[in-house]
Amino acid sequence: MKNQSYLLVLLLALISTWGFGQTEGLATVKEDFKPAVTNQPGKEYPQVNSEGRVRARIKAPEAKNVQLDIGGVKYDLVKDENGVWTGESAPQDEGFHYYQLNIDGASVPDPGSRYYYGAVRWGSGVDVPARDQDFYALKNVPHGHVHQILFPSESTNTSRRAYVYTPPGYDTDPSKKYPVLYLQHGFGENETSWPNQGHANLIMDNLIAQGKTKPFIIVMTYGMTNDIEFGKLNEFDITPFQTVLIDELIPYVDMHFRTLANRDNRAMAGLSMGGMETRIITLANPDVFSYVGLFSGGSISPDDLKEHPDFKKNVKLLFVSYGSKELENPGRGPWGDPRKNTEAVKKAGMNTRFYVSPGTAHEFQSWRRSLYQFAPLLFR
Amino acid sequence: MKNQSYLLVLLLALISTWGFGQTEGLATVKEDFKPAVTNQPGKEYPQVNSEGRVRARIKAPEAKNVQLDIGGVKYDLVKDENGVWTGESAPQDEGFHYYQLNIDGASVPDPGSRYYYGAVRWGSGVDVPARDQDFYALKNVPHGHVHQILFPSESTNTSRRAYVYTPPGYDTDPSKKYPVLYLQHGFGENETSWPNQGHANLIMDNLIAQGKTKPFIIVMTYGMTNDIEFGKLNEFDITPFQTVLIDELIPYVDMHFRTLANRDNRAMAGLSMGGMETRIITLANPDVFSYVGLFSGGSISPDDLKEHPDFKKNVKLLFVSYGSKELENPGRGPWGDPRKNTEAVKKAGMNTRFYVSPGTAHEFQSWRRSLYQFAPLLFR
Repeated sequence: MKNQSYLLVLLLALISTWGFGQTEGLATVKEDFKPAVTNQPGKEYPQVNSEGRVRARIKAPEAKNVQLDIGGVKYDLVKDENGVWTGESAPQDEGFHYYQLNIDGASVPDPGSRYYYGAVRWGSGVDVPARDQDFYALKNVPHGHVHQILFPSESTNTSRRAYVYTPPGYDTDPSKKYPVLYLQHGFGENETSWPNQGHANLIMDNLIAQGKTKPFIIVMTYGMTNDIEFGKLNEFDITPFQTVLIDELIPYVDMHFRTLANRDNRAMAGLSMGGMETRIITLANPDVFSYVGLFSGGSISPDDLKEHPDFKKNVKLLFVSYGSKELENPGRGPWGDPRKNTEAVKKAGMNTRFYVSPGTAHEFQSWRRSLYQFAPLLFR
Repeated sequence: MKNQSYLLVLLLALISTWGFGQTEGLATVKEDFKPAVTNQPGKEYPQVNSEGRVRARIKAPEAKNVQLDIGGVKYDLVKDENGVWTGESAPQDEGFHYYQLNIDGASVPDPGSRYYYGAVRWGSGVDVPARDQDFYALKNVPHGHVHQILFPSESTNTSRRAYVYTPPGYDTDPSKKYPVLYLQHGFGENETSWPNQGHANLIMDNLIAQGKTKPFIIVMTYGMTNDIEFGKLNEFDITPFQTVLIDELIPYVDMHFRTLANRDNRAMAGLSMGGMETRIITLANPDVFSYVGLFSGGSISPDDLKEHPDFKKNVKLLFVSYGSKELENPGRGPWGDPRKNTEAVKKAGMNTRFYVSPGTAHEFQSWRRSLYQFAPLLFR
């Protein structure tokens, strides 16, 4: 199965991010640390310096061993005379990273950070300031709303949660209807990941304020990716989620929000495993979506177009993106090199865009930037 | 200052909840523990038994000392041969409780629980099943939406966050307008506390499905209560929050949601310190609100009515509530016994309701029940 080999590649990408091993030699640490923007209100730690090092601090007077576990590396903290442990990581890529503390063998969230869902748990996250962080900053511009909705799902016999971004102006002009982007998280994440660490709403607010994108609605729901164990990803079956999305969520959104409820005004995108879901679902449903975004989640090959001729006919834009550090590894799945694939598909007559996020890996900064690049191309 | 003595009483109430000291003798523990509903997806611990005991478990092979810290008491956990620590608390009141783990002197969130904002931090919470939990359960009924909004605030020079519950039907009948309840959290909490641990949206969904309440909008924002230190609560000044609420948030909500924008269709309620805020703001603004709810947050005395004659004239309902365990302590602030006060105010001609939550203290189960009792009385 192609999908299975693809999943193994995704798994390798995840492992390279969540990481193993590595040690760092002695290094001079630049003493310009500031509290991370992702901290809890009033908390001084963790801090980040201009090199992108993360410094953790926690009081644990009786502990023998405290570590900061970030980017797949465990950094030892050092105890002072008051029982307070402090230490810092090697420089991290700019953008958002999941992390945790290890206290005498217990892996726990850092009480200083806010908590994010990713790596299959609610736990600590830290944002390393990025040169381009302005595009997802909270600014004095009109803000859209992020609705938490609970939509009925017969197929799963429950009410399922989704977040729906409506752009500024949605509430003040009741005659206007909007296109919709369905936007999926990756493995280990959930429907909160795009609105929280992804800042999907702020990215849109800022783009709209600058007139760079058409206003549209974004719908983010749980892709049911975590219900199987990490080691059994190749057993993932798209059918349950495809049913929820196509048969339940889209009709609910079209009934409860002022949408332009047709193919020309419907997009789907996803990151990592959400990209794989987007790929499978949009290839199989070319009557439903006209714009497709795969963020670090595979590509479409000329063979795919042969197998799914309506995809080429109906899809107005295929957007494929990766973090530059992801592309350093040769081979991105059974469909081959994503850039070459995307070029070949373009030659075959599709409107495509290939974007590379500079200096980032399989992490959220690549995906924030991907959304920022993707949104202005939609519904034109 | 009356407000200052009142705040000291609130502080005592909080201390009695967050607690100090206490130990428990040997007890037989009923072995019918089940994972808490507040756990992270897939996490087996913490668990709760039918007595309301909370059992925590964490792997910490190198630790010397691990404790469960709940209800103001620290319970020692015991290590097994695999380095896994397990132990349980004394029976807790039914409903929601903040807690944490202590690992060799470090106070950290339990990686098994979901995280809630309360006690001035994002941290662990656990729900002890209550006999009446059905009223805030997620059911197969039409669900309203909870909007995260970012509203401009000139007085604080930022975009401030609020959550807005719109009832089922809000999106499908664009001609209908709704009354609004402004609902405040307590000290140490924030705007997420009512929609998360308070289940304000599910309480409303269920009441509306049963035809027990008129559908209305609920607005929950940060009451700016935590910006001062716990020990300096008596320095709290209502002015900044009152400005945000009256001059900025209410106009924003009335512009962006289909509200009935008048006094008769506007209510304010709050819990604990949010009750105190409600009390001060509604006494000072009787032209703005017609329904007032004080949940474990003081009462209105006949003297207040003399000082604020328009309050009596304009307010159609004064609702005062407490957990029964709170009332065991004599004296509930400088305005005296809340039940006697409320009776006196009723005699003076006001429409009042006094509610006591059975078997609960200064915690969220008292306030979930208070909202459940209060909502059906509004906008009649």
